[in-house]
Amino acid sequence: MGGIGFELLKVDGRARLGRMVTGHGAIETPTFMPVATQGSVKSLAPCDLLAAGAQIVLANTYHLMLRPGHELIRELGGLHRFMGWDGPILTDSGGFQVWSLSKLRRIGEEGVEFRSHVDGSRRALSPESCVAIQHALGVDVLHPLDECLAHPATEAETERSLALTLRWLERAVAAHRAAGAPGALFGIVQGGTSEGLRRRAVESVAALELPGHSIGGLAVGEPKLQMYDITELVAGLLPTDRPRYLMGVGKPPDLVEAVARGVDLFDCVMPTRNARNGQAFTPDGPINIANARFARDPAPIDAECGCEACRRFSRAYLRHLFTARELLAYRLLTLHNLTFYLGLMQQMREAVARRDFSGFRARFLDRYGLESLRGSADDTPADSEA
Amino acid sequence: MGGIGFELLKVDGRARLGRMVTGHGAIETPTFMPVATQGSVKSLAPCDLLAAGAQIVLANTYHLMLRPGHELIRELGGLHRFMGWDGPILTDSGGFQVWSLSKLRRIGEEGVEFRSHVDGSRRALSPESCVAIQHALGVDVLHPLDECLAHPATEAETERSLALTLRWLERAVAAHRAAGAPGALFGIVQGGTSEGLRRRAVESVAALELPGHSIGGLAVGEPKLQMYDITELVAGLLPTDRPRYLMGVGKPPDLVEAVARGVDLFDCVMPTRNARNGQAFTPDGPINIANARFARDPAPIDAECGCEACRRFSRAYLRHLFTARELLAYRLLTLHNLTFYLGLMQQMREAVARRDFSGFRARFLDRYGLESLRGSADDTPADSEA
Repeated sequence: MGGIGFELLKVDGRARLGRMVTGHGAIETPTFMPVATQGSVKSLAPCDLLAAGAQIVLANTYHLMLRPGHELIRELGGLHRFMGWDGPILTDSGGFQVWSLSKLRRIGEEGVEFRSHVDGSRRALSPESCVAIQHALGVDVLHPLDECLAHPATEAETERSLALTLRWLERAVAAHRAAGAPGALFGIVQGGTSEGLRRRAVESVAALELPGHSIGGLAVGEPKLQMYDITELVAGLLPTDRPRYLMGVGKPPDLVEAVARGVDLFDCVMPTRNARNGQAFTPDGPINIANARFARDPAPIDAECGCEACRRFSRAYLRHLFTARELLAYRLLTLHNLTFYLGLMQQMREAVARRDFSGFRARFLDRYGLESLRGSADDTPADSEA
Repeated sequence: MGGIGFELLKVDGRARLGRMVTGHGAIETPTFMPVATQGSVKSLAPCDLLAAGAQIVLANTYHLMLRPGHELIRELGGLHRFMGWDGPILTDSGGFQVWSLSKLRRIGEEGVEFRSHVDGSRRALSPESCVAIQHALGVDVLHPLDECLAHPATEAETERSLALTLRWLERAVAAHRAAGAPGALFGIVQGGTSEGLRRRAVESVAALELPGHSIGGLAVGEPKLQMYDITELVAGLLPTDRPRYLMGVGKPPDLVEAVARGVDLFDCVMPTRNARNGQAFTPDGPINIANARFARDPAPIDAECGCEACRRFSRAYLRHLFTARELLAYRLLTLHNLTFYLGLMQQMREAVARRDFSGFRARFLDRYGLESLRGSADDTPADSEA
């Protein structure tokens, strides 16, 4: 399957326990990928990622091509060596950031032109150059350039966009195969909120027999339950023998709901970005450490958590650090949140292994709270961390 | 000697190898105390401090009394437990920060009134309350309130200020002894740049038979060589059986020169603050990691250094992190700089042990460079890290 192997170890309902083998080691799925936007998971070192249970990280092609530049990273031995992370790395295509961060972008059949948000310089991405940049980075899983459609969009707009994305995908596949580079190119399934277009997208993407499939264009503002429905539809149609990655999702209940619908891989800035805003995740729902009620609280964030923040420090101390804008606050909260996210993924793997996923799901949601179902999915941005 | 013990193990010229025993363990001197202004060495966790070789840390009374408040820290079991650091802690008196950070300060015989730089609230410090605050923190070494005189000052101003500081010292000693609290109160030797007043200060302070002596009022703008001369004068007059602490000093060559003059303890924000400005210390002098010449440099900051930053990352990666304002840059450079400072102290201890201090001093200064001798001492501020 070109760059990676995937083995489905157990299925419980639609939830899957799998094993993905890459050139930088094997990972167990379902799992969550911490976001290392600029080649660093903000405030954490690689040893912290291992301690938190990370098996694979995500980096952003858009950010790295602009700074420090993919040629520089290639020259220094590739992204793994550059950032000191020996495990697998997945990159997105950069398409999403072109749409969300850059200025004066212009899209055409050939690709997209834009101005760098770093220095205003003119840049371009084509399906071919996008793949070549990821080859220069030397990552394990790469993504084809796609068009990111704003929500809401009409059926006609979505159809036009999907068609372009599919033409770009074919060019990316050709470029990747021609290069003979290591690394697995995943296919992205777009199609907005249209059931018919999502079906057509799955059909076209699956026909290319790529080693993995990514579900894109969700968590961009649609209602949460619609996100779940489309995830269920797409995952139900995709080949079962390859990993499925739901891009940019999400909150803890979203991860549980998506695993219940057959998703294997996730990424989201929420555990890391929200940490820097004082939010800490717990099995009883999130808390904000800045809250005055924690000022004299000697308890850890989460007594059940084994991370360094919870083993050594009180909520009172963490609140003090956060209030005093101490850098250590961001680091400890980030470490805790990733430990929580990755621990949740491990609990889901164990639940599938013992065929108790629906029991786990009910207990988790009952305790964590279901409030997130009421919102829209735009509070889980598929964004980068810049 | 009230709270600590001190044993002089070896003397080489005026350089001393010693052992100071506190209620939170023993430390070897000479050593450097990383600055944990607000109860955290900026960006580092206690495990990093141990990895860097820290034996004792300094915290700032002024900052902690304002935020989160010493009563809160007492309630939570004291500063050691609060910040998760089991080793010895030394606090300054807060006097320096009252003069450098607070607004509308008014000084009188009773003490000093000022407005908090955090919230503008009216606060006061007297010799008695200053000691009581440090008792609430539960630290191992505490300091009496002193007046911090701006440089330059006339002989008359210096004499008036010294007299007040000595009256305050007697009140602090009485309050400390009456409280019967653990912890060792050090005496601070002031006297500006006046040899006569420094002599008088040593005489008065030494008569109190305190367990340690601190040399204050230096590194505030006087010429560097004058700082060395006064250090030599004061250290030469102080009792030999107690530790000497040179407050707020300094650059690496300053540490070597002060140890050569009989100093045992140091603190300075330079390794930590400068790290956040991109400066990294090496045996060949400091470098600034932001420099374009490091953009493609695959070497570590210092090939001889064993810190995590040097073992795992290139200058190119660290420069990228710093340029991209990634939090990990501050953390890795801080870790490196403290490892360098603490390694330098260890090398000095070893040189004294084998009676080769003057050889070590010559080799170190020859390689590091002597440029710092030409400046004034105001670039080594005895400041806090807020």
